Amino acid sequence: MPLKLQTPLILVNFKTYLEATGGKAVELAKKAEKASRETGVQIGVAPQFTDIAAVAEATEIPVFAQHIDPIEPGSYTGHVSAEAVKEAGAVGTIINHSERQLRLFEVDAAIKIARNKGLISVVCANNQNISGAVAALNPDVVAVEPPELIGTGIPVSKAEPEIVRATVGLVRRVNPKVVILCGAGISHGDDVAAALKLGTQGVLVASAVVKAKDQYRVLLEFAEKARV
Amino acid sequence: MPLKLQTPLILVNFKTYLEATGGKAVELAKKAEKASRETGVQIGVAPQFTDIAAVAEATEIPVFAQHIDPIEPGSYTGHVSAEAVKEAGAVGTIINHSERQLRLFEVDAAIKIARNKGLISVVCANNQNISGAVAALNPDVVAVEPPELIGTGIPVSKAEPEIVRATVGLVRRVNPKVVILCGAGISHGDDVAAALKLGTQGVLVASAVVKAKDQYRVLLEFAEKARV
Amino acid sequence: MPLKLQTPLILVNFKTYLEATGGKAVELAKKAEKASRETGVQIGVAPQFTDIAAVAEATEIPVFAQHIDPIEPGSYTGHVSAEAVKEAGAVGTIINHSERQLRLFEVDAAIKIARNKGLISVVCANNQNISGAVAALNPDVVAVEPPELIGTGIPVSKAEPEIVRATVGLVRRVNPKVVILCGAGISHGDDVAAALKLGTQGVLVASAVVKAKDQYRVLLEFAEKARV
Amino acid sequence: MPLKLQTPLILVNFKTYLEATGGKAVELAKKAEKASRETGVQIGVAPQFTDIAAVAEATEIPVFAQHIDPIEPGSYTGHVSAEAVKEAGAVGTIINHSERQLRLFEVDAAIKIARNKGLISVVCANNQNISGAVAALNPDVVAVEPPELIGTGIPVSKAEPEIVRATVGLVRRVNPKVVILCGAGISHGDDVAAALKLGTQGVLVASAVVKAKDQYRVLLEFAEKARV
Repeated sequence: MPLKLQTPLILVNFKTYLEATGGKAVELAKKAEKASRETGVQIGVAPQFTDIAAVAEATEIPVFAQHIDPIEPGSYTGHVSAEAVKEAGAVGTIINHSERQLRLFEVDAAIKIARNKGLISVVCANNQNISGAVAALNPDVVAVEPPELIGTGIPVSKAEPEIVRATVGLVRRVNPKVVILCGAGISHGDDVAAALKLGTQGVLVASAVVKAKDQYRVLLEFAEKARV
Repeated sequence: MPLKLQTPLILVNFKTYLEATGGKAVELAKKAEKASRETGVQIGVAPQFTDIAAVAEATEIPVFAQHIDPIEPGSYTGHVSAEAVKEAGAVGTIINHSERQLRLFEVDAAIKIARNKGLISVVCANNQNISGAVAALNPDVVAVEPPELIGTGIPVSKAEPEIVRATVGLVRRVNPKVVILCGAGISHGDDVAAALKLGTQGVLVASAVVKAKDQYRVLLEFAEKARV
Repeated sequence: MPLKLQTPLILVNFKTYLEATGGKAVELAKKAEKASRETGVQIGVAPQFTDIAAVAEATEIPVFAQHIDPIEPGSYTGHVSAEAVKEAGAVGTIINHSERQLRLFEVDAAIKIARNKGLISVVCANNQNISGAVAALNPDVVAVEPPELIGTGIPVSKAEPEIVRATVGLVRRVNPKVVILCGAGISHGDDVAAALKLGTQGVLVASAVVKAKDQYRVLLEFAEKARV
Repeated sequence: MPLKLQTPLILVNFKTYLEATGGKAVELAKKAEKASRETGVQIGVAPQFTDIAAVAEATEIPVFAQHIDPIEPGSYTGHVSAEAVKEAGAVGTIINHSERQLRLFEVDAAIKIARNKGLISVVCANNQNISGAVAALNPDVVAVEPPELIGTGIPVSKAEPEIVRATVGLVRRVNPKVVILCGAGISHGDDVAAALKLGTQGVLVASAVVKAKDQYRVLLEFAEKARV
């Protein structure tokens, strides 16, 4: 891993939200950097491919791609290579997000290519079995998304603790070294604290930050709760 | 169409070639700009997503994305929106390249989204029937790739003229206004001249330029032959 | 075309409905055969792959696959070849149904493979532009599904006649010989009559027949209205 | 598991080979049944979807689908439901064959649907990491395909024993109950014996049987070597 991945980690996924596109991506990344400095908690950002270079240029926080294709450089028009996102300044990449799911062999291949190119791999897994399977593929980070927390509106801090804990325990048994993020159910600072208390080492968030009226305030609150 | 698409057009697809990634993408785009100024022939470039902003910043030639996903901004992690590539400085996008083929309804949706966002759509079609079908979807540009010219090593200048002419004729009948590029079989300056003589209004090229020892020289030769 | 495709044609898509799986697929096909004999109107059925052989064995009406993969026989585990459905007794196949959409080049390839193997190709198109594009690919039949009629609950008989007529007109201009079915908005016998009056030569139906309390009665009504 | 899965198991994948389509699928299955009776070794067959019913009707050996889609019955034109293959007589299904690879969440969903419908799931995994990941998803059977054996022409009996043994060991640690088949490198009877000796409980074969001049003789040889 090229970057010493400091935990706890708050990773902010910009998706393709207009509120985090182009100039606004840079602005949001700067707010993340400020909240990170203020609190000493590591905050990473995952802007769109087109914004990676500008965000990496404008800030010193870790920048992640939202996806890479499991390809080597070459004749792959319209694809995203590990080289390209690294050259643009990314230190890692999300893989297999629930909105960009890959075939099993592609998840495996993308993890390996990320490792070879010195990119941190953050692989998403949207239930307990899949979390175990992903852990077996040896990524640097697994972002677990217990389905009880996706789309139900139940935040981690209000959920049955066992839901998250069971997933964390399974991942740990399969792969003791992998970093675990909680990838769903994070709406408030209390959820960040709850996620860490349940055994994860950070959170993967998106709309709670990007769509916030005051993005900086939310980032600061999340970081402060992660520090406790 | 936001840009007055000047023809003849030479569009250079950078694919994910290492020779056209990051700093090298900007260098190649500057060579294209220089060859364009030298000859007065329009040369466009299609770098990787991560390089669009830097290329658009460094040059004044038209920049194209290699692909867009047929999505609106929102919860589409790892996707490429028309907004993102436009905000980064692209004036258009390739769609349905043979290395990034889309489902039929996605080709249609991507063309419409490109138009709505003011992006020029360059849709690839890798045989005669598909060229006609694509023309019926009303893109701005069709890049025809007669299969007789793909991978066979036969350049346009040596091929049966009827092969290209028949495809051009079919596209014209279906859609009299669409701009037609020849998307295969272009290795030398003579092929550019031949493609234009056979009724196309430009060429889509990749390795012949990107992999050339002297990229500028090849660009200049192509542009000079396009001017004649 | 191996079968003289008699029009008007009512083509019943069994989807993966339980009401039309296994033994129930054969029962439903027999009802379709009875309604066809009763009225003289051609009724075809498109059961699941696993039921094609039994349906073709038990009835004399035309049987269609719901999909074929654009492959030749060989190392394609889990795929559906034209040979396999033909050997099982199918005379044709649906291609590119909105629930099983293909990449543009696959639609083209599947149509060609169907023709080579002597299968009638029925290609679905879910808006006007796509209908024109599909017509350019020279299938035997285009099933047009104006989006104004999909999921809106508006039946053809109540829709603006221009909606369907414009699509039919476009398809005719691109391909004067292709048979046109109306693939959406058919709930009652009046819709069958309206679809034919608007220039189509038949209908593609599914739930209105399969989910009906009295499947035979609905089939009979549709066939009678098609005869008028 | 509905069927008591007897091991050792020889599972013959018919792919979409012409030599195992339609009437020839039934013939081949009968040869497998005869070899199975002769030797007492369980032989299963995986014909194309269109042939499942006829093969299940004509023989008493276990019949597998080559693939199922992770869907419930309903509006899924052109898909293959667990219900459909079960109703046709299958007792199980291959999932994620290297020629029909699924997205990670689909592999998980297909295994669960298979279990719910009483179908044995045989999930393919084409390297060691993926074998571990698949084992974590709790299928009934994992068919491991060490990449050193795919396409290299090296048969199991000639390969470094450690190649297969390491994969078997990993799968066992992740999931002690799962049945393990060797899914590559089986060309001769000696390979069957070697695969079993290395810790697998059977083999998944295709061309070595289907393309054989004398299919029955090869089946008999494989079964005899499995018995030892």
